[in-house]
Amino acid sequence: MTFRARHLLGIDHLAPPEIVTLLDLAEDYVALNRRTVKHADALEGMTLINMFFENSTRTQASFELAGKRLGADVMNMAVAHSSVKKGETLIDTALTLNAMQPDLLVVRHPHSGAVNLLAEKVNCAVINAGDGRHEHPTQALLDALTIRRAKGRLHRLTVAICGDIANSRVARSNLLLLGKMENRLRLIGPATLMPAGAGEMGVELFEDMREGLKGADVVMMLRLQKERMDGGFIPSEREYFHRFGLDAEKLACAAPDAIVMHPGPMNRGVEIDGTIADDINRSVIQDQVEMGVAVRMAALDLLARNLRAERGRAAAGVMV
Amino acid sequence: MTFRARHLLGIDHLAPPEIVTLLDLAEDYVALNRRTVKHADALEGMTLINMFFENSTRTQASFELAGKRLGADVMNMAVAHSSVKKGETLIDTALTLNAMQPDLLVVRHPHSGAVNLLAEKVNCAVINAGDGRHEHPTQALLDALTIRRAKGRLHRLTVAICGDIANSRVARSNLLLLGKMENRLRLIGPATLMPAGAGEMGVELFEDMREGLKGADVVMMLRLQKERMDGGFIPSEREYFHRFGLDAEKLACAAPDAIVMHPGPMNRGVEIDGTIADDINRSVIQDQVEMGVAVRMAALDLLARNLRAERGRAAAGVMV
Amino acid sequence: MTFRARHLLGIDHLAPPEIVTLLDLAEDYVALNRRTVKHADALEGMTLINMFFENSTRTQASFELAGKRLGADVMNMAVAHSSVKKGETLIDTALTLNAMQPDLLVVRHPHSGAVNLLAEKVNCAVINAGDGRHEHPTQALLDALTIRRAKGRLHRLTVAICGDIANSRVARSNLLLLGKMENRLRLIGPATLMPAGAGEMGVELFEDMREGLKGADVVMMLRLQKERMDGGFIPSEREYFHRFGLDAEKLACAAPDAIVMHPGPMNRGVEIDGTIADDINRSVIQDQVEMGVAVRMAALDLLARNLRAERGRAAAGVMV
Repeated sequence: MTFRARHLLGIDHLAPPEIVTLLDLAEDYVALNRRTVKHADALEGMTLINMFFENSTRTQASFELAGKRLGADVMNMAVAHSSVKKGETLIDTALTLNAMQPDLLVVRHPHSGAVNLLAEKVNCAVINAGDGRHEHPTQALLDALTIRRAKGRLHRLTVAICGDIANSRVARSNLLLLGKMENRLRLIGPATLMPAGAGEMGVELFEDMREGLKGADVVMMLRLQKERMDGGFIPSEREYFHRFGLDAEKLACAAPDAIVMHPGPMNRGVEIDGTIADDINRSVIQDQVEMGVAVRMAALDLLARNLRAERGRAAAGVMV
Repeated sequence: MTFRARHLLGIDHLAPPEIVTLLDLAEDYVALNRRTVKHADALEGMTLINMFFENSTRTQASFELAGKRLGADVMNMAVAHSSVKKGETLIDTALTLNAMQPDLLVVRHPHSGAVNLLAEKVNCAVINAGDGRHEHPTQALLDALTIRRAKGRLHRLTVAICGDIANSRVARSNLLLLGKMENRLRLIGPATLMPAGAGEMGVELFEDMREGLKGADVVMMLRLQKERMDGGFIPSEREYFHRFGLDAEKLACAAPDAIVMHPGPMNRGVEIDGTIADDINRSVIQDQVEMGVAVRMAALDLLARNLRAERGRAAAGVMV
Repeated sequence: MTFRARHLLGIDHLAPPEIVTLLDLAEDYVALNRRTVKHADALEGMTLINMFFENSTRTQASFELAGKRLGADVMNMAVAHSSVKKGETLIDTALTLNAMQPDLLVVRHPHSGAVNLLAEKVNCAVINAGDGRHEHPTQALLDALTIRRAKGRLHRLTVAICGDIANSRVARSNLLLLGKMENRLRLIGPATLMPAGAGEMGVELFEDMREGLKGADVVMMLRLQKERMDGGFIPSEREYFHRFGLDAEKLACAAPDAIVMHPGPMNRGVEIDGTIADDINRSVIQDQVEMGVAVRMAALDLLARNLRAERGRAAAGVMV
């Protein structure tokens, strides 16, 4: 098997064949989830803990269903309501959970790097479900699967990512993944929302959306984090939509068969026009959600296999 | 099979034989739930999502247990904490959930008609767990099962519904169901809390509780929505209890073997005297809760059967 | 079988052989939980409801995993968000849940005695997960298992319990259990935080921590309830740590192989120095969490067996 990772902390650590292995397995789960009886036993008798230090109904639900459909015992920890309030540190919380012997731990945390730190302290496989501005690997993987299904390939595509790039872990993980697969990458957004050093990453930068979309095969819109608008980066929602919101007229600059993506939840009329979002000939936004469950099932399955193998080796070592 | 509905959105859409089919199946689940091992496999490998836009621990718990006992993977969505906060529309939330491929979706929503709207957008079977002032069909069905078990029949009974009728979806669904089964219906309450056009519905209206209860076989109390007392409809809890609260003296006006019902949670001393609520010779309030789980299991089971049949036909159609 | 209890409401009701039976069974579950496939079928098809009137992520998670690993359908009731808000009484809430036919009910409540009261009203087995200042029996049982594994026995040990004894149900249940097993018990803390009548309980009292720890085999620290600091009992966290916080220097007074325990979550630098907490040669704090799941599985299993036997006898009685 090509997938060797112990944890799924970021796209950064994955080699292209690992990505392909995961996406190929995810295809099987797409087929399974379309059946009425959607159950496999890859995680039978294993324990999966969802530990969300940031609210995210959508991602948490996706992992919860993925775990349950694979037969795991799934437990959600509402960490906002938990011991963290009582002054317990992240590490103590992690060690406590670890002592309950989960096999798989899915973690979202507002601080970049927190999930990597946590992974060093526990005995189980860890999946990063988003940490600060760092990475959100399963989002990039589900986007990749959606693109591969829509375009028939995952390389030599022109992909334009539009919006608040600097603050987006979604953008960051997608840039890493799409870069590894040899695509042409463009970032579109106000200069204030571009990541530092973006120019040296081998991507093209655009402040003009029509220019940036020219000939693009994939248009990936980001959610406007309204809480960041107070910072003075963006004058108003109306102004933002005017310059960077995706509408039919701007989309006409892209390739005629360009697909439109959005990680959700959408602000209709802010970063995307509702008509575009609902156009089943262009928008693959619902497919992204469907692929999300399948990709997470594949990730959980592969990590569980590696965990079993590792524990098997450890047990054999003990016996020698 | 007599039960043909694709969704369970309201009593309005059900024919009397469908109601009887559902109640008969629910009897099997009453028996199952009284066993220590209370498991069936009607929903094995299927996904049930509970999506509550309004808090209701009791109803949500009832559906959660119903789904789990039938072998489904059950996921609760605390929609108050979810993307709705981030500005996502009801329809976007519904489409997102739909893309996660649930087979059954249980929805409660504060707006009348929201659940019907949602049902048009998804590929799965939808159960209305209460929408605004519109319908709450499983409540009416569990009430019907409770009455049928206590009185030996579900027709030609005199049923008095007392309280805030105008604002009650429980009253509305019960009126529809009991009307279809040919019972004599009476509404008791202050004129300000009567639904518009109640007079033309073929039901009798009473402002005097003693008169309204005369000879009633079933006394169905409604919960007083205290949040509506500010509106000036009701002077005080004490005054309300004096006029419309059920106590031993008023209950003596009903038939000697009349049963007392309440959908819960009760305001003891407001709409019902605690002694009456606890009188096991008159009160069937705990039975209502028990029947609730059984009726919901029956509804889920029947909808799942129809869904399987529909998908089977669709698949066969594709092959032709 | 030696374990005869119908409910697990407190250590007070358990005879020493019952405690040993439970701990012995828990050892089997420790072994099970260390496997990748950690599933037994002791509660297959049974319903377990977790009903927490007080927040406790840690204890609730432990019971949730215990129930799921034994094959039960587990439902968590967030009672803070529930009908209790709507003015429903504890008893009405209990009767409602009871009518949903759980087989096992795990209850935490802020009032001493509330769980016992509730147990009288329901038909299922009840486990007290902590009630006011009264009891927290599974905590004492997991502490006992941790001690027995670390010290090789559970009798003739010198155990020092340090901190806010008066307000601690953890201390109370531990005193009862360790007393029944014939250990030497010491309480260390400010006089204001000692329970009334502690002197007559056959335990030694100390205000000086170094003196109290002298030769102790087990050092059990309690969590400082910061919310009680306003009461004037404790001048400041710094002062508390100086007098009653466990650090290397004070621990040197205990036996050279003394173990350090804490029920969690810890206030590092208040009641315990972080270095001590993390010292794997002294601290068994993570073991306590691991033993927690195992002990709860054993308790659920034994109560389920007794419930089955009781129902079997009742059914046979009916047939006679």
